[in-house]
Amino acid sequence: MVFVHVYILNVMALLLYVYYTSESAHSPTDSGALPPSGQGAAPPQGQHLSPPAPSPEPVSKQQHDTVLGRLRRLEGIKVGHRQKVDLVPNKIHYLKTLSLKPLLFEIANFLSEEECKLVIHLAKLKGLQESQIMPSDIQQEAIDEMDISKEEIFNLLDYNQDGQLQMKEVLTHTRFGDGVWITPENIREIYTGLEADPDGNGLLSLEEFKQLNTNAFQTYLRQRGVQKTELVRNSKHTWLYQGEGAHQILRAIRRRVIRLTQLPPEIVEHSEPLQVVKYDQGGHYHAHHDSGPIYAETSCFHTKLVANGSTPLETSCRYVTVLFYLNNVSGGGETAFPVADNRTYDELSLIQNDVDLRDTRRNCDQANLLVKPLQGTALFWYNYLSDGEGWVGEQDEYSLHGGCVVTKGTKWIANNWINIDPDVQRQIQFQQAVSKYTHEEAPAEWAVDNIYKDLHVEL
Amino acid sequence: MVFVHVYILNVMALLLYVYYTSESAHSPTDSGALPPSGQGAAPPQGQHLSPPAPSPEPVSKQQHDTVLGRLRRLEGIKVGHRQKVDLVPNKIHYLKTLSLKPLLFEIANFLSEEECKLVIHLAKLKGLQESQIMPSDIQQEAIDEMDISKEEIFNLLDYNQDGQLQMKEVLTHTRFGDGVWITPENIREIYTGLEADPDGNGLLSLEEFKQLNTNAFQTYLRQRGVQKTELVRNSKHTWLYQGEGAHQILRAIRRRVIRLTQLPPEIVEHSEPLQVVKYDQGGHYHAHHDSGPIYAETSCFHTKLVANGSTPLETSCRYVTVLFYLNNVSGGGETAFPVADNRTYDELSLIQNDVDLRDTRRNCDQANLLVKPLQGTALFWYNYLSDGEGWVGEQDEYSLHGGCVVTKGTKWIANNWINIDPDVQRQIQFQQAVSKYTHEEAPAEWAVDNIYKDLHVEL
Repeated sequence: MVFVHVYILNVMALLLYVYYTSESAHSPTDSGALPPSGQGAAPPQGQHLSPPAPSPEPVSKQQHDTVLGRLRRLEGIKVGHRQKVDLVPNKIHYLKTLSLKPLLFEIANFLSEEECKLVIHLAKLKGLQESQIMPSDIQQEAIDEMDISKEEIFNLLDYNQDGQLQMKEVLTHTRFGDGVWITPENIREIYTGLEADPDGNGLLSLEEFKQLNTNAFQTYLRQRGVQKTELVRNSKHTWLYQGEGAHQILRAIRRRVIRLTQLPPEIVEHSEPLQVVKYDQGGHYHAHHDSGPIYAETSCFHTKLVANGSTPLETSCRYVTVLFYLNNVSGGGETAFPVADNRTYDELSLIQNDVDLRDTRRNCDQANLLVKPLQGTALFWYNYLSDGEGWVGEQDEYSLHGGCVVTKGTKWIANNWINIDPDVQRQIQFQQAVSKYTHEEAPAEWAVDNIYKDLHVEL
Repeated sequence: MVFVHVYILNVMALLLYVYYTSESAHSPTDSGALPPSGQGAAPPQGQHLSPPAPSPEPVSKQQHDTVLGRLRRLEGIKVGHRQKVDLVPNKIHYLKTLSLKPLLFEIANFLSEEECKLVIHLAKLKGLQESQIMPSDIQQEAIDEMDISKEEIFNLLDYNQDGQLQMKEVLTHTRFGDGVWITPENIREIYTGLEADPDGNGLLSLEEFKQLNTNAFQTYLRQRGVQKTELVRNSKHTWLYQGEGAHQILRAIRRRVIRLTQLPPEIVEHSEPLQVVKYDQGGHYHAHHDSGPIYAETSCFHTKLVANGSTPLETSCRYVTVLFYLNNVSGGGETAFPVADNRTYDELSLIQNDVDLRDTRRNCDQANLLVKPLQGTALFWYNYLSDGEGWVGEQDEYSLHGGCVVTKGTKWIANNWINIDPDVQRQIQFQQAVSKYTHEEAPAEWAVDNIYKDLHVEL
């Protein structure tokens, strides 16, 4: 609940931030010529944004080379390229490049059938929860609290600044659905239900927009009732702790992921635990980014306590996603990358003539890349680009992906995310603190592993 | 003349090679898991292909790390990314990423106005020659000599194996034009002139094809007469020696190219000299690759004498192109990259509905990327991918580019190519031999610099 609350605030703050800093909006890692942290964008003028977080112990650029080293980033070479990787003794694995944007690989037989079965078994033992709660009234206040005028919101939404909100301009901000996935039909339905578009031209003028309550869309949908299949995400999931003392298979998977990604073991060891996801027949997850864009003010969930920062923009800073297929699916359930290796990326052009490419219940067949689930296969991709200096750079927008609707049977997958702060100083502070607490054997309250560990029943 | 002769033979041999080895046709560097040389593809069965060249002094994989090091390859990050480069004391240059496929950068003010003027001046002093000679009778025999049946040729051309040659299947093999750029109109004209397509459906059946003389197209065009604007390339050029003792500005440019590309100085120093090209009004260069694909049997012009190999497949092995704009052009003359950052590359789909994207007299406006000439600006791109192990890999087909027609004024450019053998052993042998001869102060006859030096009047 708290999470959703923060999320909505984040989205609005992000919109404001982008709006107010549109002249100077570059991520701190936008140019290789800039120092790695905090100086890339002018401090935003928006009232909801805090000043840059102070760095109590500044760490020089040099230091990151010695403490954590440059991050290894695999080479994709070209689509279809195959390279051998050494993951397990006496076994050969191949990394096959599926796309360059995002940099995405497939590894067949990454997990054995037994390992897949065991992970599913452990997840069932622990118990799964709904991945997305149904819209409730809690968030409503969150938005009401925000001091933004109707004109400001309209301006933010009116991407092409023609004084009218087109269908795609409303659809792009699916957050208005408050967790409900909005389709063109929904919008027409809501316009009619609310009499929001009296001239019936499918466009909202500022005058028409002003007549609407701030939460008109949400309120309408809540009253009308929402099906699970209408949510952004229709699945159940749980988290399996992978740290020291965890089940040997879970430890083995973590070690294998370290060998696969070639990222520093100490970073992988303090990343999120394994997420196991179950999609029942009819389940889906519309296309999304696993981690958000980075602005000067953005902080990472995993480092924010250590870095002592408090900002309204937060994201999970998942540099890498490793997705495991735990079973063979009888029908559907492909992973779709709608814009993989597209020549350009433009959020608005994802929606063309009522066809929303992000919609994984309807339009998976139009995705640039579709991966069929195959038990034991792993996908591995980067959600962020390189900054050109061996660290995490900007978000890779092409990493947009989703889970196509399961038409028959059940789909089980697991996700390993590797969390790295694009601000190298903050990541180093985090690692130093984790390492200190680990050695003192005191509970590291703010370590991601333990946050998730506390949230759920232990195995 | 000899060059063209060899070229035609190469093309035919290549066609045969690809045909006979289509089951196992991978370049030796196709997979990172394979050793770097000569073991990637099964020896071709074609009668015109020699056995693999023996390596008199085998050099181990390890050795290349110590002798030449891994080749540095710059990071593109994303289109529009800017990174600072340190090229000249007290001056800041930026490398701007223009595309990732090919990996292509633009550097403004790489040369000063004075340097541009001096290079043009030196080229004029030396004298320029036509870049392409008009079709003559010499090559005719070359093809006649080859022992290939009509059926075999037909089969090679019939890409989709439907038993008919479509327009695009003939157009793709522009070599049939013998240096003349063939357009759909040309083909229709030739079909009519030769009465080659009696049923007039625009397709050639095997029966129709068999009626044609091997050199029918060439003979027809030669009799009908060809304009310079109908050639593949309509320009003049010369070569400026850049080795020790060359003009200080030419030396300075070479040093700057070394800093830009970060490739081993000893490799750059023994690459081709500077090519200066002049396009008069009406001049153009249809889209092409600066260097060809690499098969197991392919040898490089610059290493073939040292490597003692004799193969019918040869190419220039230009790993990198650095192109300099020496003046501002009054009209046209853009550099076009028709398929830069395309999602896929397919030679045949370059020609759609009579529109040939490679045609820089007609279709530059449809290129994915167009670069306007600006005095002093340099373009820098890789014609080959990485092999994933720090060396030169497969040809990057997306590096296809051409010079759009100059509609007003004159266009002056210069090219620096960096020649590296994709077979690391052969490159090492070449470097060792060059270095030995240089130290003994004997003329290194086979060094590329000197080949070109001898061919032209010295400054």
